[in-house]
Amino acid sequence: MSKNGAVDSLDLTRLRADYRAGHRTPSMVIDMLLQRLAARGDDGVWISRVPDDALRRQASALEERLRADPGVLDRETLFGVPFAIKDNIDLAGLPTTAACPAFAYTPSRSAIAVERLCAAGAIPVGKTNLDQFATGLVGVRSPYGVARNPFDAAYIPGGSSSGSAVAVAAGLVTFALGTDTAGSGRVPAGFNNIVGLKPSIGLIPASGVVPACRSLDVVSIFALTVGDSLAVLAAAMGFDSDDIYARCAPAGYTASLSAAPPAPRIAVPRPDQRQFFGDAQAERLFDVALARLASLGATLVEIDYAPLAEAAAVLYSPTGVAERTAALDDFLVRQPDALHPITRQIVESGRSAHAVDVYKARDRLRALRRHAEALFADTDMLVVPTSGTIYRIDDVLADPVQLNSNLGHYTNFVNQLDLSALAVPGGFRDDGMPAGITLIAPAFREPQLAAVGHAFHVASSVTLGATGVAMPDITPPASNPAWPTLDIVVLGAHMRGLPLNRDLAALGGRYVSECRTAPLYRLFRLPGGAVARPGMVRVAEDGAAIAGEVWRLPAESVAALLAGIPQPLGLGDVVLSDGRRLKGFLCEAVATAQAEDITRFGGWRAWLAAQE
Amino acid sequence: MSKNGAVDSLDLTRLRADYRAGHRTPSMVIDMLLQRLAARGDDGVWISRVPDDALRRQASALEERLRADPGVLDRETLFGVPFAIKDNIDLAGLPTTAACPAFAYTPSRSAIAVERLCAAGAIPVGKTNLDQFATGLVGVRSPYGVARNPFDAAYIPGGSSSGSAVAVAAGLVTFALGTDTAGSGRVPAGFNNIVGLKPSIGLIPASGVVPACRSLDVVSIFALTVGDSLAVLAAAMGFDSDDIYARCAPAGYTASLSAAPPAPRIAVPRPDQRQFFGDAQAERLFDVALARLASLGATLVEIDYAPLAEAAAVLYSPTGVAERTAALDDFLVRQPDALHPITRQIVESGRSAHAVDVYKARDRLRALRRHAEALFADTDMLVVPTSGTIYRIDDVLADPVQLNSNLGHYTNFVNQLDLSALAVPGGFRDDGMPAGITLIAPAFREPQLAAVGHAFHVASSVTLGATGVAMPDITPPASNPAWPTLDIVVLGAHMRGLPLNRDLAALGGRYVSECRTAPLYRLFRLPGGAVARPGMVRVAEDGAAIAGEVWRLPAESVAALLAGIPQPLGLGDVVLSDGRRLKGFLCEAVATAQAEDITRFGGWRAWLAAQE
Repeated sequence: MSKNGAVDSLDLTRLRADYRAGHRTPSMVIDMLLQRLAARGDDGVWISRVPDDALRRQASALEERLRADPGVLDRETLFGVPFAIKDNIDLAGLPTTAACPAFAYTPSRSAIAVERLCAAGAIPVGKTNLDQFATGLVGVRSPYGVARNPFDAAYIPGGSSSGSAVAVAAGLVTFALGTDTAGSGRVPAGFNNIVGLKPSIGLIPASGVVPACRSLDVVSIFALTVGDSLAVLAAAMGFDSDDIYARCAPAGYTASLSAAPPAPRIAVPRPDQRQFFGDAQAERLFDVALARLASLGATLVEIDYAPLAEAAAVLYSPTGVAERTAALDDFLVRQPDALHPITRQIVESGRSAHAVDVYKARDRLRALRRHAEALFADTDMLVVPTSGTIYRIDDVLADPVQLNSNLGHYTNFVNQLDLSALAVPGGFRDDGMPAGITLIAPAFREPQLAAVGHAFHVASSVTLGATGVAMPDITPPASNPAWPTLDIVVLGAHMRGLPLNRDLAALGGRYVSECRTAPLYRLFRLPGGAVARPGMVRVAEDGAAIAGEVWRLPAESVAALLAGIPQPLGLGDVVLSDGRRLKGFLCEAVATAQAEDITRFGGWRAWLAAQE
Repeated sequence: MSKNGAVDSLDLTRLRADYRAGHRTPSMVIDMLLQRLAARGDDGVWISRVPDDALRRQASALEERLRADPGVLDRETLFGVPFAIKDNIDLAGLPTTAACPAFAYTPSRSAIAVERLCAAGAIPVGKTNLDQFATGLVGVRSPYGVARNPFDAAYIPGGSSSGSAVAVAAGLVTFALGTDTAGSGRVPAGFNNIVGLKPSIGLIPASGVVPACRSLDVVSIFALTVGDSLAVLAAAMGFDSDDIYARCAPAGYTASLSAAPPAPRIAVPRPDQRQFFGDAQAERLFDVALARLASLGATLVEIDYAPLAEAAAVLYSPTGVAERTAALDDFLVRQPDALHPITRQIVESGRSAHAVDVYKARDRLRALRRHAEALFADTDMLVVPTSGTIYRIDDVLADPVQLNSNLGHYTNFVNQLDLSALAVPGGFRDDGMPAGITLIAPAFREPQLAAVGHAFHVASSVTLGATGVAMPDITPPASNPAWPTLDIVVLGAHMRGLPLNRDLAALGGRYVSECRTAPLYRLFRLPGGAVARPGMVRVAEDGAAIAGEVWRLPAESVAALLAGIPQPLGLGDVVLSDGRRLKGFLCEAVATAQAEDITRFGGWRAWLAAQE
């Protein structure tokens, strides 16, 4: 760590600010990075590196471009940002080993995620160590040694994306790509005091990634801040038909940081179902984390964790492992001795599984998804410890399978149930080792997880990774308009207890709050119609504030709501008394010429009451 | 067949009209039905029947209700409508056999689809014969005999839903439930000159259905007309969390009949890839069907059928069959000799499959889905022969597996690739045996398939099933407002070639047509803004017609479009010159006070042109 930590920090906020101000240049960043790499010596982080000269040449080229066109900083969101790549993801020109030398091949094309990051201006630095074939959560199952945990080298770095996590925590790169099938993008984040974003399956295409379990493999992101991880997601995501499990994000989905909602409902496993494997410190830190979430306004809802634990157990059952066996089948047949003995033992265990049992297990998982759907119908997200405890390297070598399995207790179910997850630092044990929490929600809820995760991270007052640098100042905007929900201001018969309210419920709407408009409107009782309805019109003079309600609709229901709104009503911006502009019901002015002006009542409910 | 066919027809249009007019009563319908049943004798259609007395009592009870409250006909869309149920679907009080006596159980609760149909007023008549455990497309694999094909008893009825299809074709019921995993809801429709609707997986919950391949099993509908099948779908569909594969329809989805779009693009297998197994008559009938589609305005697009044929082959590979083995595993272990020998041979073949191969086959199927996605990105639907040929019972008994397999050539891929399908009558061979076509589209496109399928059925001039009764007069409304798209009128910078048009493209929008509003509006050039925009306001006097464009947006994109519309614009009803009301861009009147009135240009393009 540099003495002047903040100035040298590679977090995206400071790095981009320095590039804009001219305080740093890409060459300065690469030089510093090479110094840090040299100072660390053999730290087990890298399997291969882009040569120093090539890095320096790329930095110079970027500098040229910036001099010629300062606007490049606006267009390229990761301009001059160094990053590391887990060595099961292709980088053109460097070998992909998956931590198995006999498996290595040198791709001529980078993985599509890497291509997109480079197109956004990022600088790939090298390929990082991992548990072989991304099988493991420990970071010690590699012929390339153990990536050194920057807090205490006696402890495991976590896996399988061990090198990527350490590279970020040690301040060697701004961010790193990992992969996450069972928890490989979260457990190492927890053990390195950094952020680990595990996006929804298929959001970042896995084209150019060595498969572990193809239907569950996710490209994940390690970063120093939550906002950084979202910026990387925004650059890397997007459908690619070459990945058979790639999916389109919902229309309007935007990976950008916003403030947390005022009062999220957060599920948490019942106390008797929490599992810390005897680690009282981790247990205490989780209690502190829950208190911190509550202090941020969250309502904690205790839930039954058993269905999630059951889903977790499927992943390393023989029928689950058989998906790994299928991915490695040809290599396993050809060169079984080339595998790490533990990895081979695990992957070959899938051979014994019968097809019939795969279908049975799949059906059981579908039933468990129903539990998860009910859970997330009632809450916004789930919080769990990122892992129940941390182990020393010696402990894991002595009991390699069981201790690894313990680390997956809170992670293995996430991809099985098609969820998104975000690991966030959560504080330190007395011995200085970090612990973290993971926030979990349905697929495509990364922006919501990030909003809460960022607030939690800031409130934790921890420094970034192992760099000792404080969190940069980040003020996220109040809301992300592209969240897969849309808040609608209703002013008439759609309000609670009134005749059309059931329509909002049928569309999956949720009541948010009462509200008042800014004093810009007039309210009319519209003539005719089966149900009495008001119409609100914005006016230039003599406007008043009108009372209404805010309802939150799933984005996919908005078309049905709109389709059912009769002339002269429509949806447009409604300005609220607190300055917010939400979409809401407006009326065509032409239709109010013959209508009774009921503005003086201040709202539809008051007018209704006066009719009784 | 009654001499006065039209009067006695059980098609929904005539039956409901007669109930309304008092020309028929539920008791008359049940009496006629019992007479027809008696006249047919042992026709192999039924495995069990609701007793005659119980049917008569139910008819009387319905009659009582109708007398007391004629409005019941409006509320209950299937009031007094008799229907049959394939005997792998539960009807409370009658045994469910799946055509395997040793498997039989008597459920205390009906399948949820049956419950919903009964709640809509329909009268269950009995349980129908099938290929045992819904395994087969022939209709001869049952210990309860062969349901007699009403066109020629020497020919197979088609399976597995044989009894249900014959019951409809013979005029015994208005509609019947089948199931369709590999094609069991389509092949028998083709062999019986009736409509077979195979909805999207999970649209009708499969709770209370004996599983064949759980992830692929669909409750299907046989009916005399396309509109009838949609009416039944509307009553039976809807999410049910008890079915682990149930899905919600897209917001706003409505199963109702509408006119076909003016010029659908319909994919068809290349001539050299069409397979009629030597049946020149079937080949000729398919050519006639294609010519009929073209005469209705369709553009036929020849496509490569190989990826679909490959997906079809997976279903009866050992890894595919293992899903059937899983569903029957316990029973198969306990009572293997209770199975039909052919069924047993097939289902047991799944035992040999390895788990590893299931994952490989699944990945290959995912890749084939990409082909289907590309196919349906370019076309609205696909047309294939419902089957390439038809066989005599004796032929099938002599070569039971291969001939069955031939019948699945055009059906087996449909559920594998998550598509919806509609089998429609397509004419008769010289020997009087029927042949049909099947229209196929992505999931949740049943209303679109029905629009084209209905037009095709009417144009075929065939009579209904084997009843000899002509098609009733049905005039579907011009469009279905609840299709999973929403047509939006754009008037300014969103039009083709203008700056915001790319936003519509990014949201998946498709250009439909130019349009003009009714002469009710004034157009303004709104001040300010990065992009010049017009605002249109409806007025009471001096309104003019304004030129615009209609764009079709996926329903799920509407929220994103709305979220991005700035004050003073919004979305509401726009009345077009042809009287249609579509959603479109409207402006708050208050914002036009200071804006330039450009109504005299007649539209935004003309104003833009005048600025040059």
